[in-house]
Amino acid sequence: MIIRNIDDHPGQPVDMEGVSGVRMSVMVGRDDGAPNFALRHFTVEPGGHSPQHSHDFEHEVFVVGGNGTLYFEGDEHPLRAGDVVYVPSEHEHQFRAGPEGLRFLCLVPMSRSCGEPTPGS
Amino acid sequence: MIIRNIDDHPGQPVDMEGVSGVRMSVMVGRDDGAPNFALRHFTVEPGGHSPQHSHDFEHEVFVVGGNGTLYFEGDEHPLRAGDVVYVPSEHEHQFRAGPEGLRFLCLVPMSRSCGEPTPGS
Repeated sequence: MIIRNIDDHPGQPVDMEGVSGVRMSVMVGRDDGAPNFALRHFTVEPGGHSPQHSHDFEHEVFVVGGNGTLYFEGDEHPLRAGDVVYVPSEHEHQFRAGPEGLRFLCLVPMSRSCGEPTPGS
Repeated sequence: MIIRNIDDHPGQPVDMEGVSGVRMSVMVGRDDGAPNFALRHFTVEPGGHSPQHSHDFEHEVFVVGGNGTLYFEGDEHPLRAGDVVYVPSEHEHQFRAGPEGLRFLCLVPMSRSCGEPTPGS
């Protein structure tokens, strides 16, 4: 059993093309023995963003605080605390922080098609 | 793509043996086409609790607000907003709300061993 508070785990900067001002902490993942999905905490600086991309696995997201938008297939949607977001696989998306910055949880399956590990899980 | 705020989905009372004062809303689940895991939002009234039980699938939990404790295999652990909890399968556990009540997300895999649907997914 694990109990970890997100405030105690600021995470590491995400060094990836198309990313700006993002830190990630894997709060529960494969290193903890979790078999099916990983729970990651992201903080995004004001004006920062995740990469604009698509991939062969889904996201389930919870907005913890701050503000921003979700870019999804050409449209931008406002985000606020308490929002749950489902991003299906193979759709272009990007999380963009507003002036307050953005904090969210993003969950991914532990393996993608054919059993290959999902990045960041 | 789905965006739903937890405040707009108060959920339904959970009618199950050993449960007191709990409402659940499936925020993202199999009915939404999610393939691997389900994100449920729970509100527990002050003094209420989930069942004290164990099962053959894990939980990944995020405490949104309020206060309470996690009972796990004979011990009680305090919970506060921002806590991420991992409850491995086959371990006895119970979520217990304190005087403020408790709000949390609880994620489960969509299927358990042998592919049978996980309850509440």
